[in-house]
Amino acid sequence: MDRGLPLRPPPRPDDAPMVWNGWGEPSRRPGIGRREERVLAELLGGPLPHTPSVSLDEVAVPDVALPGPVLRRLAGIVGERHVRTGHLARVAHATGRSYTDLVRLRRGDGSSAPDAVVVPADHREVQRILEVCAEQDVAVVPFGGGTSVVGGVNPQRGRRPVVSLDVARLDGLWTLDRQSRTATFGAGTRGGDAELTLGAQGLTLGHLPQSVEHATLGGFVASRSVGQASTGYGRIDDLVLALRVATPAGSLRVGHIPASAAGPDLLRALLGSEGTLGVITEVAVAVRRAPDRRAFEAWWLPDVASGQQALRNLAQEGDAPEVARLSDEPETRVALAQQSRSARAYVRTRARRREGCLLILGWDGDRRALAQRRRVARRALRGAGGRSLGSAPGHAWAAHRFDTPYLRDDLLDRGVLVETLETAAPWSALSHVHASLRAALVGALEERGTPPQVLTHVSHLYATGASLYVTFLALAEPGAELDQWAAAKAAATRAILDAGGTITHHHGVGADHRRWLDEEVGPVGVAALRGLKDALDPTGICNPGILLPQR
Amino acid sequence: MDRGLPLRPPPRPDDAPMVWNGWGEPSRRPGIGRREERVLAELLGGPLPHTPSVSLDEVAVPDVALPGPVLRRLAGIVGERHVRTGHLARVAHATGRSYTDLVRLRRGDGSSAPDAVVVPADHREVQRILEVCAEQDVAVVPFGGGTSVVGGVNPQRGRRPVVSLDVARLDGLWTLDRQSRTATFGAGTRGGDAELTLGAQGLTLGHLPQSVEHATLGGFVASRSVGQASTGYGRIDDLVLALRVATPAGSLRVGHIPASAAGPDLLRALLGSEGTLGVITEVAVAVRRAPDRRAFEAWWLPDVASGQQALRNLAQEGDAPEVARLSDEPETRVALAQQSRSARAYVRTRARRREGCLLILGWDGDRRALAQRRRVARRALRGAGGRSLGSAPGHAWAAHRFDTPYLRDDLLDRGVLVETLETAAPWSALSHVHASLRAALVGALEERGTPPQVLTHVSHLYATGASLYVTFLALAEPGAELDQWAAAKAAATRAILDAGGTITHHHGVGADHRRWLDEEVGPVGVAALRGLKDALDPTGICNPGILLPQR
Repeated sequence: MDRGLPLRPPPRPDDAPMVWNGWGEPSRRPGIGRREERVLAELLGGPLPHTPSVSLDEVAVPDVALPGPVLRRLAGIVGERHVRTGHLARVAHATGRSYTDLVRLRRGDGSSAPDAVVVPADHREVQRILEVCAEQDVAVVPFGGGTSVVGGVNPQRGRRPVVSLDVARLDGLWTLDRQSRTATFGAGTRGGDAELTLGAQGLTLGHLPQSVEHATLGGFVASRSVGQASTGYGRIDDLVLALRVATPAGSLRVGHIPASAAGPDLLRALLGSEGTLGVITEVAVAVRRAPDRRAFEAWWLPDVASGQQALRNLAQEGDAPEVARLSDEPETRVALAQQSRSARAYVRTRARRREGCLLILGWDGDRRALAQRRRVARRALRGAGGRSLGSAPGHAWAAHRFDTPYLRDDLLDRGVLVETLETAAPWSALSHVHASLRAALVGALEERGTPPQVLTHVSHLYATGASLYVTFLALAEPGAELDQWAAAKAAATRAILDAGGTITHHHGVGADHRRWLDEEVGPVGVAALRGLKDALDPTGICNPGILLPQR
Repeated sequence: MDRGLPLRPPPRPDDAPMVWNGWGEPSRRPGIGRREERVLAELLGGPLPHTPSVSLDEVAVPDVALPGPVLRRLAGIVGERHVRTGHLARVAHATGRSYTDLVRLRRGDGSSAPDAVVVPADHREVQRILEVCAEQDVAVVPFGGGTSVVGGVNPQRGRRPVVSLDVARLDGLWTLDRQSRTATFGAGTRGGDAELTLGAQGLTLGHLPQSVEHATLGGFVASRSVGQASTGYGRIDDLVLALRVATPAGSLRVGHIPASAAGPDLLRALLGSEGTLGVITEVAVAVRRAPDRRAFEAWWLPDVASGQQALRNLAQEGDAPEVARLSDEPETRVALAQQSRSARAYVRTRARRREGCLLILGWDGDRRALAQRRRVARRALRGAGGRSLGSAPGHAWAAHRFDTPYLRDDLLDRGVLVETLETAAPWSALSHVHASLRAALVGALEERGTPPQVLTHVSHLYATGASLYVTFLALAEPGAELDQWAAAKAAATRAILDAGGTITHHHGVGADHRRWLDEEVGPVGVAALRGLKDALDPTGICNPGILLPQR
């Protein structure tokens, strides 16, 4: 069986910090070749300049502001070697992995670095760290895999010293209830490791976001993550059953298996709390029998509207595949442009037309059920004017589906702005959100003289709607990359909100989306979130400035 | 097609108050005949005494404590005729419909009656009522169908005057998005009416709790209700997409369709809030195409353990029917004892044994899918030693499945204590919870000299566990019914908590379960709920004393 997961556990940040210009071992890093460079230059309307970056050692971090006695108290809890104040540890915990994070680090700006990185071994140590930090008024930024693309783990330096609380040592499968199909993991367990551990037992969680090799279960929960197979397996919201959480107000356990009506669901109040209410230390999830088979298939649809309608029908009748990803015309064109001439010819021959949209589908299941479900999908897609491209392009996508983030380093080396954003909307509003968002990005970046390529796909299907995932590329404005990004981001978010989308379907709020949360949930909603925070984190030391404004 | 729903819209409490000894028109009320009476007397070990009750007019309510000027301000918002202070309106809003509610009312105790019943027409009126009540320190008890069995709508009279805010006029289908399969209803729309309205459009919500004829969509959401077909359609938690809510801190809209990662899910914080955070005025739900067919079938299983295992396998492999309800041996025996001799002979001939457990299954779907799913279930049940009893007993159950609550009036007339309670647990703990709960009830009531019949079924299947639904009957202790009930309730809840169950799977917390909420969610969890309440209801006027202690 093809599990489709190139899972090579990367080095832990505790041993060697992640380098900002690479997510894993350099050996596996996919790169940009001459051919891709030529295509990009053509698409973006200009030669790609070489844009150098400083070395990791040259990233400037502020002086350590934590007083010695506090550092000693923390060391008394976790041990000397688990309180790290070295340059590399601080740089590795200064940011997540957004475009703006990379831009800042490449310039040598490590101003958001924490004063220290603390790496506790268990829930009790986390609870004690919070107690000491609350007493000493030290901010605590929970840190999982560090893959946030919205600034969720970037210390928002204010008046307080900051420690980054890395949950790397809270890892592993702690309990497995085969009869109830539930598993409890340490919150610092990486998604890929959890999947490998469960796989050895014939089980799966089925949660595979692009960050799966690095991101942790606690991070998935804290940011309301969604995996590539969410159409079949559900969001992390649907997979998580219970949590153990350390907060400045004390420890709590939330969630009852299988379900409860005992008041508001506190599990759901911790989901998406992004470290602002406390530190998740333990995550209980629902697991399933690992599927016997996994199949991928690519289709060619005449246009995005017909593809969207076919996917909607499948989702609403309960016939959707586990993975569904429909590229719009521009994304399809760029994907094809990067292929060899023979590959393009193959697609066009099978598709019997030059223009159209690429659709990738993936199924998990037993042989018989899988065959039956593929038949139903085939019927729907043929009805929509689609043509199968066979399984090869589907498997090719699956083989490289965790690679894209690695390409950003090569793109930044070549002076390319590359950013992703995402939203979700009801089926009835999806095309409108798509068009508005696209127009806003094109408008904002053309105005700056850097016309973008805006590539979108529909994915993560629900009966009631779907998400839109956008990648945009443009020539970066040397020295003004952050302004350029901010203008594009603001235009896109404005368009999303006006058209009825959400500011985020699965990246989370972090620092980047914070200013729009008010509009998303309303001032009374923000007051409710503030009430929750005041109850669990009365002095406001937990990830201050994330989700809610700092005060 | 058999929709299985005898939906006759009952009179609205606004026109004629529900009488406490009947849930609808007397003409449709099922009753207890001589045969049932004989069986009961035998089961409970004594003749059934006639236990009279006072008439509705004789129920004593406190004097109206609301000052005239406040009543006039309320009338200024909703109109004179929608502020009701008449005897019947106050009695009808004094309680829900729990056993203890019925006992109290039958004795003439209407001490929990509100001072007035206010019946607003729209969200704006609700918001203004809350503003006036917050200013005047008047408690507001939101009232939907009044079917709470845990004291959720009983005014907990303290230092404040109380109005019952009846949402009956906030009803009807307000918007329907066929493309996205979503519908928005007024929160006062009764479940049965919503189902009829959607049915006329070829759609269904699929949420059919036993209270469906009376209970409202807002009430379902406020109490985290579960329908009889929840195994297939999900809990109300899974069906609700968005809410509009009026709170003393202002109005808010929660929920984004189809999904969002923008911070903690405030929709889930309002779910199960039981009127303590504000008043739900609008409910958006996911709807589905109404099924072409609905089928029921009964099975005979050798024992509850083998039935449970078969159901677990079906649930974990995604093959569970929409409805699944496995009676334990005692419940099966009582169900059979109430049948005619020939019906019992039929069951035993088909079952080929005297002892065993009755299982009712129900499927919704298209002809082909339904046949396929029934084949899979048949294989699993035969593997567990089960024998099909055919569709007749299944349809008989379906035809009477909303009747049981009506029987309580006849039982109380005959001096019988009859109460239901429910919990849920992981599959691995289910048998232990079942045995502990049963032993606790038997022990507590035997000690009082009133040995009970404890009848349990497993229903509402999840991949990770299921719920247990218990009905217990005993000879009531005349004059000491409430003490007797409290002893049984405390013993049962203690047993549930110690064995790893939840204090409630779908009845809610209300006043009856409040003292155990601390144990269910822990003191830090209670603090979080309190923080949420303080943010939305700073002076504590919303349903005080429900869910959290009054202060």
